Amino acid sequence: MRNIRITIEYDGKNFPGWQSQPGKMSIQSEIQKAIFEVTGEEVDVIASGRTDAGVHALGQVANFHTNTNIEINKIPYALNSKLPKSIVIKDAVEVEERFHSRYNCKLKTYRYIVNNSEFPSALERYREFHMPYKLDYEAMERAIKYFEGEHDFKGFKSSGGSEKKTTVRTLTKCSIRKEGTRIYIELTGNGFLYNMVRIISGTIVDVGLGKINADDIPEILKSGDRTKAGKTLPPHGLYLVSVNYDC
Amino acid sequence: MRNIRITIEYDGKNFPGWQSQPGKMSIQSEIQKAIFEVTGEEVDVIASGRTDAGVHALGQVANFHTNTNIEINKIPYALNSKLPKSIVIKDAVEVEERFHSRYNCKLKTYRYIVNNSEFPSALERYREFHMPYKLDYEAMERAIKYFEGEHDFKGFKSSGGSEKKTTVRTLTKCSIRKEGTRIYIELTGNGFLYNMVRIISGTIVDVGLGKINADDIPEILKSGDRTKAGKTLPPHGLYLVSVNYDC
Repeated sequence: MRNIRITIEYDGKNFPGWQSQPGKMSIQSEIQKAIFEVTGEEVDVIASGRTDAGVHALGQVANFHTNTNIEINKIPYALNSKLPKSIVIKDAVEVEERFHSRYNCKLKTYRYIVNNSEFPSALERYREFHMPYKLDYEAMERAIKYFEGEHDFKGFKSSGGSEKKTTVRTLTKCSIRKEGTRIYIELTGNGFLYNMVRIISGTIVDVGLGKINADDIPEILKSGDRTKAGKTLPPHGLYLVSVNYDC
Repeated sequence: MRNIRITIEYDGKNFPGWQSQPGKMSIQSEIQKAIFEVTGEEVDVIASGRTDAGVHALGQVANFHTNTNIEINKIPYALNSKLPKSIVIKDAVEVEERFHSRYNCKLKTYRYIVNNSEFPSALERYREFHMPYKLDYEAMERAIKYFEGEHDFKGFKSSGGSEKKTTVRTLTKCSIRKEGTRIYIELTGNGFLYNMVRIISGTIVDVGLGKINADDIPEILKSGDRTKAGKTLPPHGLYLVSVNYDC
């Protein structure tokens, strides 16, 4: 059987998230439906991880097993012709039969966009978080560096996700940059707890607002206390940028 | 009576364009309705010019006369609280009573976005024109320079707009730049004929495709023949960026 790995861009706005849910078409169920229309096969499309309702992806990765003999470079075209325009398959490659998008994932990169402008943007209203109050960008730059490395992120997760044994994760790169009124927070790591990017981003914003001191971040991380971290920012500012594998 | 000039960002996607039309809320009618809700006055909001269905604006300018005594810096907040989130008032200033957004306009800048990628973008599907075929960017750079200056743009207009006496316009700046797979065409001028930006952009794209020779542009301009210019590109890649006045 062939194992196909696909890279997907999607606009999370009108979906209940990645995962199939009763009664509402999810991103996963749209892709499974497209595969069925193209191949006649009912497959299970496995993503690198779920994304919540409203969260976007520039490079989500998923895989599925199939007996179709469609050429690999025709697969994106075939699936895109059946998918809504809010979901686009950007690449397809053939991988080893045992490859698994979630288990084999080495690193993921997420981006959170904050628009620090007096008025919200009409065009970007479903694509970024609007913060009208003045932010201390230098403090935010200082704060984000404390998240790099291996930490127990127990205080930076929401309950409700799948309960994993350990809450220790490694962030290999944490960066922040500014372009005009927009601030881009980017986190790369070997794994992310439920809502972790939105809570870290909320903490960085709270540092910008002066509600949290940048240099208290190590203490807050150590405490493991959710109430000491910042707010969970809304999903629509979040993007899954890319997923990396060794293979 | 006070004369208020406002700067507006809007997402053109779900509107029939700027101008009020029977039975469908236009951008103009949404703003007039918001003003009525705030002031109780039925005003006529005059824009620098109309935009078509699907066309976006980052900085449309309009003005209206009012007797309201709301402070000028409160006006954007008051109107935004009544407007759909796809229309945002970003600025309001008090201007002389005889100021007119259309008659006093000196320069306008439009941007057209072409995504020259193999697959369309899911996130930008209503915000750019997707062109999957390889474009010769250097030829496009050469072509755009021929549009700068004063020309008779008779061959670069669609019928159906308001029939103006002269079709001579001056483009003070024509530029093109590339960022990743995206190409940004930007035109600044003292006036634009109906669909002029979309036809010039279509001509530049046809140059990129090798359908039109860059160095034939002066000849095509001189001919005044619509059939020699390129296609009218779709509205959703077009943005009214800014409008300039002397005052």
